[in-house]
Amino acid sequence: MREKRKGMLLVISGPSGVGKGTVSKCLDDEKDIIFSVSCTTRAPRPGEVDGREYHFVSEETFCRMVEEDGFLEHAFVHGNYYGTPRKPVMDALEAGQSVRLEIDPQGALQVMEKMPECVSVFILPPSFAELRRRLEGRNTEKPEDVERRLNNARGEVALKDRYQYLIVNDDLETACAALRSVVSAERHRSSRYYPAVEEE
Amino acid sequence: MREKRKGMLLVISGPSGVGKGTVSKCLDDEKDIIFSVSCTTRAPRPGEVDGREYHFVSEETFCRMVEEDGFLEHAFVHGNYYGTPRKPVMDALEAGQSVRLEIDPQGALQVMEKMPECVSVFILPPSFAELRRRLEGRNTEKPEDVERRLNNARGEVALKDRYQYLIVNDDLETACAALRSVVSAERHRSSRYYPAVEEE
Repeated sequence: MREKRKGMLLVISGPSGVGKGTVSKCLDDEKDIIFSVSCTTRAPRPGEVDGREYHFVSEETFCRMVEEDGFLEHAFVHGNYYGTPRKPVMDALEAGQSVRLEIDPQGALQVMEKMPECVSVFILPPSFAELRRRLEGRNTEKPEDVERRLNNARGEVALKDRYQYLIVNDDLETACAALRSVVSAERHRSSRYYPAVEEE
Repeated sequence: MREKRKGMLLVISGPSGVGKGTVSKCLDDEKDIIFSVSCTTRAPRPGEVDGREYHFVSEETFCRMVEEDGFLEHAFVHGNYYGTPRKPVMDALEAGQSVRLEIDPQGALQVMEKMPECVSVFILPPSFAELRRRLEGRNTEKPEDVERRLNNARGEVALKDRYQYLIVNDDLETACAALRSVVSAERHRSSRYYPAVEEE
């Protein structure tokens, strides 16, 4: 049978340290979902590659892109700028492809506002104590940064009901299975799936 | 962590002969989803057991239940009455349990109207030719009944966009996997899933 699909804009968010990158990575093998590489002014963490996890840019470049309205969303988070380049996302969606954004809650709320047809997923920690352990375990944050991120997390978790789906990242496999089910279900949503039942 | 869930009302529908019973049967092992047994005035098919597939009732009993407002939905389909007893569904939902309705499109549209928070799934045939083969293969329909059901199916398929999810029942395993993903995703919907992120 002939069937058409509209691309979906998948927004995955959650507090810093919750593991949204790790959970969302399970969608890497979904070949029809493009990963949107964000721009950031923060320094690369060990193992991060420019153009893969992020485009690492200068503040100057970032500000120029803001002036040129080059971002779908952008935010100042924990002392650094982050933004989603608009054009690759819009081009992919227009071509019927799906796009995955993995962004902070400030940016996610902006996208949900501008693109209400997006699919929004908020990743939660099992507890704030566990979130603290994960932030400390990174060994990339100073103690006062950990406190700041934890405080932000409380505010972000309080807004969890703005998202369509909630996934607790307690066990990684379980969280990934839940995320996959969201993607699979949303592929069957009548607003973006058009199967044509033909005579023969 | 503590988490609460609200029960979901799952409405599975589709044209006669599409195999909605067979697809939806894959949810039998989801112990937290109660199957709502409909009432009907039609005769049992071979293998059907009263109280399992349907409550087989007389027209008199059915009409009394209609008068007593005992149905969440009811419809006259292909010469017989079908209805979903209201009380077991409402009692289960109020107790936080999920309920699965497997009903014809007339009834499904009524439930979607009355219970807009329900999860609605429409099962499609891969083609009308295949639907004809399935109806004929049942060996329970007279030739003129097959035509009548096919004509109804065209009208029902035309209204498919009123449902939230569409699943084509071409390959049974694929259709079941899609239905399972809908159930799993909907369990994570923020409007009915309340995980509490606690301190410890």
